Amino acid sequence: MTARKLASEFLGTLLLVATVVGSGIMAETLSGDNAGVALLANAIATGAILYVLITMLGPESGAHFNPVVTLVFLLRRDMSVLLALAFIAAQVVGGLGGSVVAHAMFDLDLVQSSGRVRSGSAQWLSEGVATFALVFTIIGTLRARPEVVPTAVALVITAGYWFTASTSFANPAVTIARAITDTFSGISPPDVPAFVASQIVGGVVAWVVAERIFGWRATSGEEASLAP
Amino acid sequence: MTARKLASEFLGTLLLVATVVGSGIMAETLSGDNAGVALLANAIATGAILYVLITMLGPESGAHFNPVVTLVFLLRRDMSVLLALAFIAAQVVGGLGGSVVAHAMFDLDLVQSSGRVRSGSAQWLSEGVATFALVFTIIGTLRARPEVVPTAVALVITAGYWFTASTSFANPAVTIARAITDTFSGISPPDVPAFVASQIVGGVVAWVVAERIFGWRATSGEEASLAP
Amino acid sequence: MTARKLASEFLGTLLLVATVVGSGIMAETLSGDNAGVALLANAIATGAILYVLITMLGPESGAHFNPVVTLVFLLRRDMSVLLALAFIAAQVVGGLGGSVVAHAMFDLDLVQSSGRVRSGSAQWLSEGVATFALVFTIIGTLRARPEVVPTAVALVITAGYWFTASTSFANPAVTIARAITDTFSGISPPDVPAFVASQIVGGVVAWVVAERIFGWRATSGEEASLAP
Amino acid sequence: MTARKLASEFLGTLLLVATVVGSGIMAETLSGDNAGVALLANAIATGAILYVLITMLGPESGAHFNPVVTLVFLLRRDMSVLLALAFIAAQVVGGLGGSVVAHAMFDLDLVQSSGRVRSGSAQWLSEGVATFALVFTIIGTLRARPEVVPTAVALVITAGYWFTASTSFANPAVTIARAITDTFSGISPPDVPAFVASQIVGGVVAWVVAERIFGWRATSGEEASLAP
Repeated sequence: MTARKLASEFLGTLLLVATVVGSGIMAETLSGDNAGVALLANAIATGAILYVLITMLGPESGAHFNPVVTLVFLLRRDMSVLLALAFIAAQVVGGLGGSVVAHAMFDLDLVQSSGRVRSGSAQWLSEGVATFALVFTIIGTLRARPEVVPTAVALVITAGYWFTASTSFANPAVTIARAITDTFSGISPPDVPAFVASQIVGGVVAWVVAERIFGWRATSGEEASLAP
Repeated sequence: MTARKLASEFLGTLLLVATVVGSGIMAETLSGDNAGVALLANAIATGAILYVLITMLGPESGAHFNPVVTLVFLLRRDMSVLLALAFIAAQVVGGLGGSVVAHAMFDLDLVQSSGRVRSGSAQWLSEGVATFALVFTIIGTLRARPEVVPTAVALVITAGYWFTASTSFANPAVTIARAITDTFSGISPPDVPAFVASQIVGGVVAWVVAERIFGWRATSGEEASLAP
Repeated sequence: MTARKLASEFLGTLLLVATVVGSGIMAETLSGDNAGVALLANAIATGAILYVLITMLGPESGAHFNPVVTLVFLLRRDMSVLLALAFIAAQVVGGLGGSVVAHAMFDLDLVQSSGRVRSGSAQWLSEGVATFALVFTIIGTLRARPEVVPTAVALVITAGYWFTASTSFANPAVTIARAITDTFSGISPPDVPAFVASQIVGGVVAWVVAERIFGWRATSGEEASLAP
Repeated sequence: MTARKLASEFLGTLLLVATVVGSGIMAETLSGDNAGVALLANAIATGAILYVLITMLGPESGAHFNPVVTLVFLLRRDMSVLLALAFIAAQVVGGLGGSVVAHAMFDLDLVQSSGRVRSGSAQWLSEGVATFALVFTIIGTLRARPEVVPTAVALVITAGYWFTASTSFANPAVTIARAITDTFSGISPPDVPAFVASQIVGGVVAWVVAERIFGWRATSGEEASLAP
């Protein structure tokens, strides 16, 4: 069963990143002079695939696809440290695979180094807010109406593309994967650590607010999963 | 429990306004020469976050995030005057916080004064119609199919961005918050009172039509909440 | 109860047309040089409001808002001739009211005469196909999964804006109402009768195909309503 | 019953292709200078109609509309070889009919020969990945939450328009039909066989991964249908 869970996290993160990177390439190619249209396409494609991936892979692995989400479930004691580490490894490798697959589909160099600078306190705050919103949404909808978690996650990320200055990466595995693409969705490798740190802070703050202020604790039926 | 409710109204309105203002800034930056693309992004982001916020915070506070909605529940005698006043205060403070957070994420002055004039009878009629549509939708879907209230509210606002000349503020707390941003979604401070008055009129008319013409009265299970 | 039903058809058609006409005006104003963006906004706003209106007014009147839909329910013997005629009158008057309200919100002359020619066999075929798709969708989803009728109707019209050459009016009351607006969504008055005739043919063919080929007959629980 | 099933596959594929081709023509006409807007309209219209068609025709024929989907159900032994062949014939004829209907609605030559070259290993990989994603989504959501299959299929194709370099045909019947339209969505006839081969490979790999790695086997309640 663990092998299947890791395959699920690997494949889900791969398809998620392939969509983020691939749709960014397509959008920029088609809408070069209007970045608004490009980001709209990027946001809609990402939201759409998130709904699909969480719905179908949720029953396998819980559909985290995101080390911060795994970390929060670990903090809630819904999974072991060892399994959490294996999840994170599968997510990072899957994410890198997603960039490679996207490049192959668009006939580009398979591994690149992004030259796109994304830095500064405003960007870091954006990632903190974006990840706060994502984790708070996951915990809150798992509690309120677990059957709509896939929809809620898809929509909070679609909105996040627009309401943050960083377009809402909100995911360390996806951030690392986007460092190896020199296209629309890329991020310069030296800018990755601060993004990841901001995401971890945002996610942990969301967990604290959800559990301490709103008292949203895990129930036995949830078990580290976005699937109802 | 009351503290949690107020925290929910505060946080929900903050995230709502951060999305409205933030996505407006991002959209205008990216699509400067095509305001249609900018408004489309603004409308999609707002609708998406509304679905998420109402779904997850509905069970806490009812997910009003809007003084007119609170007023209508007060008129229906679903809540006390004191609680309604506290809700409205939390919404207004949360909304102002949302503009500040959006400015911080985009590295702008935290508090600004909008120079965007939104005035005249056509604008006021627009706000009246928009708020009528919002309140009528809330009461009508609460009665018909309470589980779809978050979807219906999200979609009536997404549509309202386009079918009104004012882009459908439909919310006094959001209107006040948008007076302190000199960006895409701003409103000049002197124009705020007439917008708020129009919204109150539209909301009360919707309540009267819903209750007198259609006989849509509150049932005991509803209790001042958009959550089913 | 009949008065309420007629009020529901009147108000629903009014809000539908106000959205179609209003969003067309807003979209054209903002995106003048890119009619694709304008039609996208028009299509999204119309789909969004259709979901809302059918969901909340379905339990009142069945949420027809369309004389062809009323005609099909009459052919299925789900309603009397007299009630059908009253429904159609309420829809036509409501639709005209919707154009007037949209004009008022955008500070335009309240009643106009459209100069936009929409004529020729390709346009008429488009209206026939669009109305076929609408009526077939209503009958088919009422049978298959009645709780998703509002979603299905919203989406078939959103798609119809794009897959037909006429942008899918598919509704005689809306067509008549769009003759009195000289804006993006208008239709020249002399072109109205052929549109309406094409819509009736498309709707009746859909009913015949649905009932004769697929054997989709009304069941007792449906009773001339799009509401489950 | 078989005649009805074939009528359902014929009509569903016809309406699907009419939407793909028709919305492509409309989008290109309106947004000529911004292909991003055109593809966005194309993707939204296609996703919308897929949801509608699968929901309403699923109970008739299973709503395959796609020879690769039929092939996978055959491999799962959910249907006979003879019925599968008849399904595929109905899909291909329906698809060709869809292009003809779209051309008629836009007043173009009814049958055309596309001059749009879509070739090369990147395009073929794109079709393989797109069809993998489609088939994996169908099997996975049928197992996890069958009632959301129409939504999931609509969204994976909407995303696929953007994350692949080929815009995600993912369907041999649709590919053949798009060879007879010299418009936005066309494909040069000599390029069809490699697209179809790539789609078959992608679909079969998805079936193998789903059944061997994830152990997602058919259950008796599914019976070759996308309808729950």
